Amino acid sequence: MAATSPSGNPATGTAGGPFPPFSKRHLLGIADLNPVEILSLLDRAEAMIPVSRQERKSYPTLSGKTQINLFFENSTRTQASFEIAGKRLGALVVNMSVRTSSVAKGETLSDTAATLNAMRPDVIVVRHSASGAVELLSQKVSCSVVNAGDGAHEHPTQALLDALTIRQHKKRLEGLTVAICGDITNSRVARSNLLLLGALNIRTRVIAPRNLLPAGVEHMATEVFTDMREGLRDADVVMMLRLQHERANGLMIPSTREYYRFYGLDAEKLAFAKPDAIVMHPGPMNRGVEIDPAIADGNRSVITDQVEMGVAVRMAVLDALLPAGDAR
Amino acid sequence: MAATSPSGNPATGTAGGPFPPFSKRHLLGIADLNPVEILSLLDRAEAMIPVSRQERKSYPTLSGKTQINLFFENSTRTQASFEIAGKRLGALVVNMSVRTSSVAKGETLSDTAATLNAMRPDVIVVRHSASGAVELLSQKVSCSVVNAGDGAHEHPTQALLDALTIRQHKKRLEGLTVAICGDITNSRVARSNLLLLGALNIRTRVIAPRNLLPAGVEHMATEVFTDMREGLRDADVVMMLRLQHERANGLMIPSTREYYRFYGLDAEKLAFAKPDAIVMHPGPMNRGVEIDPAIADGNRSVITDQVEMGVAVRMAVLDALLPAGDAR
Amino acid sequence: MAATSPSGNPATGTAGGPFPPFSKRHLLGIADLNPVEILSLLDRAEAMIPVSRQERKSYPTLSGKTQINLFFENSTRTQASFEIAGKRLGALVVNMSVRTSSVAKGETLSDTAATLNAMRPDVIVVRHSASGAVELLSQKVSCSVVNAGDGAHEHPTQALLDALTIRQHKKRLEGLTVAICGDITNSRVARSNLLLLGALNIRTRVIAPRNLLPAGVEHMATEVFTDMREGLRDADVVMMLRLQHERANGLMIPSTREYYRFYGLDAEKLAFAKPDAIVMHPGPMNRGVEIDPAIADGNRSVITDQVEMGVAVRMAVLDALLPAGDAR
Repeated sequence: MAATSPSGNPATGTAGGPFPPFSKRHLLGIADLNPVEILSLLDRAEAMIPVSRQERKSYPTLSGKTQINLFFENSTRTQASFEIAGKRLGALVVNMSVRTSSVAKGETLSDTAATLNAMRPDVIVVRHSASGAVELLSQKVSCSVVNAGDGAHEHPTQALLDALTIRQHKKRLEGLTVAICGDITNSRVARSNLLLLGALNIRTRVIAPRNLLPAGVEHMATEVFTDMREGLRDADVVMMLRLQHERANGLMIPSTREYYRFYGLDAEKLAFAKPDAIVMHPGPMNRGVEIDPAIADGNRSVITDQVEMGVAVRMAVLDALLPAGDAR
Repeated sequence: MAATSPSGNPATGTAGGPFPPFSKRHLLGIADLNPVEILSLLDRAEAMIPVSRQERKSYPTLSGKTQINLFFENSTRTQASFEIAGKRLGALVVNMSVRTSSVAKGETLSDTAATLNAMRPDVIVVRHSASGAVELLSQKVSCSVVNAGDGAHEHPTQALLDALTIRQHKKRLEGLTVAICGDITNSRVARSNLLLLGALNIRTRVIAPRNLLPAGVEHMATEVFTDMREGLRDADVVMMLRLQHERANGLMIPSTREYYRFYGLDAEKLAFAKPDAIVMHPGPMNRGVEIDPAIADGNRSVITDQVEMGVAVRMAVLDALLPAGDAR
Repeated sequence: MAATSPSGNPATGTAGGPFPPFSKRHLLGIADLNPVEILSLLDRAEAMIPVSRQERKSYPTLSGKTQINLFFENSTRTQASFEIAGKRLGALVVNMSVRTSSVAKGETLSDTAATLNAMRPDVIVVRHSASGAVELLSQKVSCSVVNAGDGAHEHPTQALLDALTIRQHKKRLEGLTVAICGDITNSRVARSNLLLLGALNIRTRVIAPRNLLPAGVEHMATEVFTDMREGLRDADVVMMLRLQHERANGLMIPSTREYYRFYGLDAEKLAFAKPDAIVMHPGPMNRGVEIDPAIADGNRSVITDQVEMGVAVRMAVLDALLPAGDAR
């Protein structure tokens, strides 16, 4: 199928192809990927950009395949991104949200998994509030599983799209310094990003108040800061996190005004980063809490580019896990 | 693409074609359209009827295009109508309802717009409870936007489908008298209809209790009545409105029984209209509140025809805004 | 169209074909089907299995057709099963759930039916909490209607998939003894199964506490038991029902622990059935209430096979009701 696959017809000079077959059945976390696999997914996503942008006609590499989006937590952007990615590749996409599911009737996650698996989907994209729920589900099915975020554990496609966005803007990943700032403890986005950047030996910094830093964070990040100005100094990339009120779990969160004063990204603090530093946020943003609206909308912000890269990354992941013409 | 477009192959004698390109990117309100544009959309919709009825095979003029239905308010009929219209033209349709959106997490409308836009849809169909929200959103995106109803402001596809229904039944629009009866103040349906009929110089009457008549209504309708019998006299078209309990906002609404006595359409009041007057209602109906069930189901009622024309109108609007083969 | 229809190209030796046209427009209940029609649907579903399993390419026999799934009650498995069935046959599938419908605005079921019908769907799949609601709706539309469960009345596709599962495992239906155990009074699954098995002269037993046995059940089942061990003796098929807390309606339900002790299926009770008896459950299961998890997951359980057969049965029903190429 290589001749008709987007992977096999790279439309950008930067992306190589055809890509070697991807050896894994699931994408549960960045922790499961080696550097070659990470870079291979980034290259594949880069080749997908013209298709994801609808500048080039989609190749129906997922034609006849069934993708179930199983979301136990709400998410506008992530569910829509996966749905659009799947449909642009020709998949039949079935959305299931927690409120319309049997979970309300007390069915176990394993039974939900077995039931959906019996309908012979090719891939299930899962978001769940519990860390590890997606891996558990993957053990009960014979199809591919993609983690679209599980508790405070991992959100691998977010980390991939962040890396792709950085590479698009900086033309490289190696040698950069990436500062991640905010609620590190509760953030699967931070975790997956630290794992990905760490695997590629990229210098990472985490910046947070002490009570939002998880134990052992010094083993995940190159450097740890509680002072934002120090942490931002000479950074190439400033990655802000959403203050997750809904996952705070009784932690002592400072008032949002106090939080903004010390950890909100504004022009004064951003001045400590490199002059060409880019600003990222996984969304949805709390404007005026973790980020000054003027920065969010400013010329350093690449926040909407992240969303755009998200579709390309998810197309690449689906394409990698479900090679065209592969019977189940 | 004219040779394979439904517009180019008119299936009815009444509709001309091929149609001139539609010059606007958005359909935000009837107020933005001139009479030529209104009539051009009606002609295009008329040509779509056989396709919308599935009597003639659909032409995939929206093949490869992505349509997002972004509904901040619930609506069975409108969302389904847009979804069916898009799918019958071959579009990939993604539904997003407020309950599954980031709005619950406090994201601003502008951020939602920027996020969705970054996924490169070709059109976003929006319903919102706030007047002006759809126009605001349209300013933040590079794709087309269709207003599926915003607050008490406009509901342009409803006015177009109403006009098409009238034209189908009366074989003309000019020279008719259209009476619109009910909660004029809170009704975007009334507003869009008055704008459309006014643009075409069609005689309009509004009928309502004084407290449901907005200030300045005399500049929008040809005549204003508080007595229903007087208002209906010799009307060709009787357009009933839903009593919008949910948008009443503390207005002094009479009891529904009292409302029905004075403003509910029954046989006795309908007798004041022309003998061949048709009865319309945008739905969903409050039977026994604004309309006698016997009238709603009677042979003068064209209420289900309105729903049917709705699919044709929405296909025409999508087809007009997104010409086939047009790369974004 | 027979030459390109899956029915006309039977892929299994057991299923005959091409199938005679199915004479009914709706599938409202098993009560409306004669034995020939029941067996014809089972044969058609059997021929669909390779397609439903994606082992064989789908034939787009529903291409260009519109299927509306109108669910007034939530159901993960049934809605997804119908959606996947329709999409694998090429239909445009539109989902409507009660929460996003006009029902919240007080519209009558008849008006909802008339509205949806005016959008010219080819089939509406309906689930409703009220017995008879689906038949009422079918009287208001010109398209086909499939009952996906109405109150305590019928759930015909469940009975068909159960019969197909039994036939796949036992290679026959005649001569078997099927025991149905649990909340018979509130179960449309039990009712449809008793009707189907009764029509085919298959020996049925119901097993339940006295207060979960409906009046007149002795006319529907061959035998009635309140003692589970007696009821299971020498059964070929053990069909467990979900204890429907949500439909209990003030009936005296024993505590779940007491219920499990007397009517929960465990190894000790199952030993009374034939050594090769299969265990079924329509799902979602209350593990530890009506069934021991070890039995649910054991080698006698065919519960996930039921789900798999569900897709094939629904494909067959849609294919039978909507013959390819048939203009509305």
